[in-house]
Amino acid sequence: MPSCAVVGATGFTGIQLVKILVKHPEIKIQSLTSRQTDPPALQSLIPEISEKSDLRIETFADKKVRKADVVFLCLPHSQSAELGKTLFSRGQIVIDLTADFRLPNAALYQAWYQWKHPHPELLKKRVYGLPELFREKIAKADLIANPGCYPTGAILGLLPLLKGKLIAPESVIVDSKSGTSGAGKKLADGMLFYNIQNNFKAYRVEDHQHTPEIKFVLEQASGASLGLRFVPHLLPVFRGLLSTIHCRLAPGKTEESVRKAFETFAAKEPFIRFHAKGSYPSLHDVTGTNLCSIGAHVDAKQGFVTVITAIDNLIKGASGQAVQNMNIRLGFSENMALEA
Amino acid sequence: MPSCAVVGATGFTGIQLVKILVKHPEIKIQSLTSRQTDPPALQSLIPEISEKSDLRIETFADKKVRKADVVFLCLPHSQSAELGKTLFSRGQIVIDLTADFRLPNAALYQAWYQWKHPHPELLKKRVYGLPELFREKIAKADLIANPGCYPTGAILGLLPLLKGKLIAPESVIVDSKSGTSGAGKKLADGMLFYNIQNNFKAYRVEDHQHTPEIKFVLEQASGASLGLRFVPHLLPVFRGLLSTIHCRLAPGKTEESVRKAFETFAAKEPFIRFHAKGSYPSLHDVTGTNLCSIGAHVDAKQGFVTVITAIDNLIKGASGQAVQNMNIRLGFSENMALEA
Amino acid sequence: MPSCAVVGATGFTGIQLVKILVKHPEIKIQSLTSRQTDPPALQSLIPEISEKSDLRIETFADKKVRKADVVFLCLPHSQSAELGKTLFSRGQIVIDLTADFRLPNAALYQAWYQWKHPHPELLKKRVYGLPELFREKIAKADLIANPGCYPTGAILGLLPLLKGKLIAPESVIVDSKSGTSGAGKKLADGMLFYNIQNNFKAYRVEDHQHTPEIKFVLEQASGASLGLRFVPHLLPVFRGLLSTIHCRLAPGKTEESVRKAFETFAAKEPFIRFHAKGSYPSLHDVTGTNLCSIGAHVDAKQGFVTVITAIDNLIKGASGQAVQNMNIRLGFSENMALEA
Amino acid sequence: MPSCAVVGATGFTGIQLVKILVKHPEIKIQSLTSRQTDPPALQSLIPEISEKSDLRIETFADKKVRKADVVFLCLPHSQSAELGKTLFSRGQIVIDLTADFRLPNAALYQAWYQWKHPHPELLKKRVYGLPELFREKIAKADLIANPGCYPTGAILGLLPLLKGKLIAPESVIVDSKSGTSGAGKKLADGMLFYNIQNNFKAYRVEDHQHTPEIKFVLEQASGASLGLRFVPHLLPVFRGLLSTIHCRLAPGKTEESVRKAFETFAAKEPFIRFHAKGSYPSLHDVTGTNLCSIGAHVDAKQGFVTVITAIDNLIKGASGQAVQNMNIRLGFSENMALEA
Repeated sequence: MPSCAVVGATGFTGIQLVKILVKHPEIKIQSLTSRQTDPPALQSLIPEISEKSDLRIETFADKKVRKADVVFLCLPHSQSAELGKTLFSRGQIVIDLTADFRLPNAALYQAWYQWKHPHPELLKKRVYGLPELFREKIAKADLIANPGCYPTGAILGLLPLLKGKLIAPESVIVDSKSGTSGAGKKLADGMLFYNIQNNFKAYRVEDHQHTPEIKFVLEQASGASLGLRFVPHLLPVFRGLLSTIHCRLAPGKTEESVRKAFETFAAKEPFIRFHAKGSYPSLHDVTGTNLCSIGAHVDAKQGFVTVITAIDNLIKGASGQAVQNMNIRLGFSENMALEA
Repeated sequence: MPSCAVVGATGFTGIQLVKILVKHPEIKIQSLTSRQTDPPALQSLIPEISEKSDLRIETFADKKVRKADVVFLCLPHSQSAELGKTLFSRGQIVIDLTADFRLPNAALYQAWYQWKHPHPELLKKRVYGLPELFREKIAKADLIANPGCYPTGAILGLLPLLKGKLIAPESVIVDSKSGTSGAGKKLADGMLFYNIQNNFKAYRVEDHQHTPEIKFVLEQASGASLGLRFVPHLLPVFRGLLSTIHCRLAPGKTEESVRKAFETFAAKEPFIRFHAKGSYPSLHDVTGTNLCSIGAHVDAKQGFVTVITAIDNLIKGASGQAVQNMNIRLGFSENMALEA
Repeated sequence: MPSCAVVGATGFTGIQLVKILVKHPEIKIQSLTSRQTDPPALQSLIPEISEKSDLRIETFADKKVRKADVVFLCLPHSQSAELGKTLFSRGQIVIDLTADFRLPNAALYQAWYQWKHPHPELLKKRVYGLPELFREKIAKADLIANPGCYPTGAILGLLPLLKGKLIAPESVIVDSKSGTSGAGKKLADGMLFYNIQNNFKAYRVEDHQHTPEIKFVLEQASGASLGLRFVPHLLPVFRGLLSTIHCRLAPGKTEESVRKAFETFAAKEPFIRFHAKGSYPSLHDVTGTNLCSIGAHVDAKQGFVTVITAIDNLIKGASGQAVQNMNIRLGFSENMALEA
Repeated sequence: MPSCAVVGATGFTGIQLVKILVKHPEIKIQSLTSRQTDPPALQSLIPEISEKSDLRIETFADKKVRKADVVFLCLPHSQSAELGKTLFSRGQIVIDLTADFRLPNAALYQAWYQWKHPHPELLKKRVYGLPELFREKIAKADLIANPGCYPTGAILGLLPLLKGKLIAPESVIVDSKSGTSGAGKKLADGMLFYNIQNNFKAYRVEDHQHTPEIKFVLEQASGASLGLRFVPHLLPVFRGLLSTIHCRLAPGKTEESVRKAFETFAAKEPFIRFHAKGSYPSLHDVTGTNLCSIGAHVDAKQGFVTVITAIDNLIKGASGQAVQNMNIRLGFSENMALEA
């Protein structure tokens, strides 16, 4: 049985990933690591794991990680580029949940992350891990850049429309609302209970680092040049991400053509659900699942399209998608451990 | 001292209104009424009112209401048109917090409320109670249609831009997120705790009854024809309403002109606050206040403007604004009982 | 492979039960039923179930239910006594999640449920489905009364102490705090979001119908006569149940003896965890698990013991425990589908 | 008009205090101070204060504070003993919201706060600022130790019972549940949104520093020796504090005597409300008010009494009570600025 390691198993995406992997019948967990010198007991993070399990979180040690066939990197951004290169160079399969390999060139990292990428040559070799777009490439990739949560929700709601030339590419506005887990486990004033409860706000208006990721991937997929505006907001919930996408219908296109495009997409994709006319997803429709649930409103007379997508930011927006990528790469059934 | 009555004092807007009125030094509360035959004790709804107070909520009786100089109607929609007409006809000042007098003609009520308005002639006589737009008319009006919560947040964020011809009027998208109190006290599955907590969703996408109210008022104020898209969402909080407004900058206009327009607006309006560049309002900035707090992002290069407005839907979006209207009508200081 | 049916699959315990059963490798789901004539799609209640699954919820029909080896009854209280008798009489294994078979005699039902039990003779035949107390009997039982959520949390925190004669049985006070799901899916004012959010309250003070269940089971297990006071409270969360149990140390007993009793209990029970001295469980320690997590404080000088237990009310307090009972009855590993 | 200063105006109790003081018609705010060198704008903390107000928060400067007749100290514990002594020595009225003057002797500070009190002689001179107990002394005091939030809720629920010898003093158990604001504005892992939301837990079980305060005050008031157990819990809400108090009825006492004691208490106290039989307070009954709302259940047969008290921890549990004390000390109506 192939084996995997999770580097950074104590953060939100690491914990979620381990929760999925322990249910996976075809993968052995070789190693769970943390940068902490005295990592917490696994059961203190994931109580449903039996105390009899011999799994534990250990301080990172390369000699254990190197035995794994697949290594998931769940680190803070900018922290996985070096390790990713090392693992990739010696032939391990790397699925990176940070942003470090998502963008196509070093210039975009400089502009949006204020970070000089140490290994820009790898940005040509990595595959962007969105199965709905790059399934075939993922099946052969050894360096998979797992998408960001906002890009996942935005791209999946726009892909069928842009590919089908159903909307005006210069008109795309993504108004997203995310649970706080998207920000990771950080000790910051803005993440204190009193600042989040009973509150709601926008942040990084038209300035979020996921903007170029959405734009690049959609432009690559559609060949069109995208006019993209992106405003993220912070919800007083822990998990879930809903994006309301406003765009203009392309001239001559109909409501029927839009609904058909989504229906076709949902029919062939295991984790895409498309709502009946007049119905739209809520966070509850996707919490705890690897689904992306989509609803659409079309006003053909005025030429408007509104698409609403919901995902669980920690699952389809991070760790579930990482397992989906692993499943594809290792030739397992794509929904293994991701569906009941 | 002039006197007032609150008809419908047990709903969310009624309770909030009474909370403000009891702090008001220049108005006497003549009567608080309910449709219930056995209304609850006032202190069970507003515990901070002294048990020694002789205020109480009584079953509606016209002989008490007719003694009031000002009557606030806090009823379900379609329930105040008849009473409003009666009170107005006999010379009382009516401030109606329902939608019954907000729209300019019966056809719009038919289209958006599926309701045949019984007194369309009054729709010519009523004044729309948004002080920032109709202060002079409100000062003389005897039938004041208090604005809806969504229209208040949307109009205040767009008014300076449309009046100044700073944005393309056909490009307006209002993406709003409201606390649950906007729906009133109703016993419905969708309002149960389990359906709201940890959840978020859009509802009445491009189909909300506040749409024509926003559109009509802004068109009347600006002379422009508005292309308006409006998508409301339900937040897992009780109070507060944040609107993210996306529009296109008019050709030749600058970031400076947009900021200037809001600064001028905020400087002359007692309840408008405009955030410094890069800062945006949160619900916490307005909860418990009559403020509308506004932030703006301008991307002159791409020609985009993003405006974010926050109000307390029960205060500036309902009962606080009603008192502001009363203050104007009776010649009191506009911020009386509304500011510390 | 043996098969099961869930009667009442659309309520909170029914949904939770199906979520567990679909992960169970040794049981076939024969039938999911509802009293509704037009039951909702299973995926609308449990989105993680594949749309390709042929499982669906159907209007109750005996001919399908009778084929199941095990039938779980997830009905409102008083609704399962008749059906339970029918199923039991024809030899099916019944695991009843209602209160209908929990109490030992009809008089207690009359006193606490104001309900005349239609089949009191069955109350002698049923086994109380708390594995930690009746594992051997459950293994042979065909009518299993699955415990209430409050009784589960209270009994598990008191059992080792009463059996070991470590506390004064007349001194037991159970102060419990539950998430709202304990009340089931009901459309009631008290369950509306605005009444729960930012709120907390006691209810049914010393008058809750779970009181005789706690008392009877503990008296039966310990042979002592219990002085029991029970005050439940409602937390502004959906799931989870924490009980703070106050009692007096029996004369001559020590802190060591109390800790030892719990350690022994936890060591032999798969779902009991006992916290180190000075550490106590939180809801997060048990949410989504079948665990009962326990902490204890002993003040031997003053003669006090404080025990804190936490469970997920829908899992160990209902559906997880029901599956644990099924596992025992059918000879499966006890933690099957309940642990990772 | 007398004047006041608030030292520490940016914390939760400081902000709440200023919110009340700005509504107070008989006191002038002389100075609001902070230890920060660049204090935030007052309106960023209390948006309802007009931007035209000339109130601002300034870095602490003794020359402004010394002009105030009354000085409120809203500092972290151990930080107000020195300043309190200075202000008191030069004749200013000090109302201290920290714990620094609440306990009667230095030994208790050593034992419960691990702190050597620098001015133990003042502990004989200070008056404990619970108006329901020490109103006459407060009227003449120049050093008022404002009670802790837990002690306020616990003492008010026990005072009439202990004074009336209606309960067994050795049997008192206080099981309290508090909103997170009780912990102050601190940047700690335990206060992060993800750790509080959907969670509930006990903390400092039988080890909370408010224990000796409750015990001492009640023993002083009743002359009895108290057996007190105190377990605090943390609710996933920002404000509010509910205490469930379990005790034994004194021999020969009746339900009627208990209810009568509370009714008498409530009748003469402006901020005490006593619920009708079978009704109990919730946090919503007191949020935003200076009330302490009380309900009681008496089981005379078994000899048990359960008292439930609810307060807003930031108002009656802190800043409202501080203003109540000031009102008494300055001879104002006791409910001024505290009731509508």
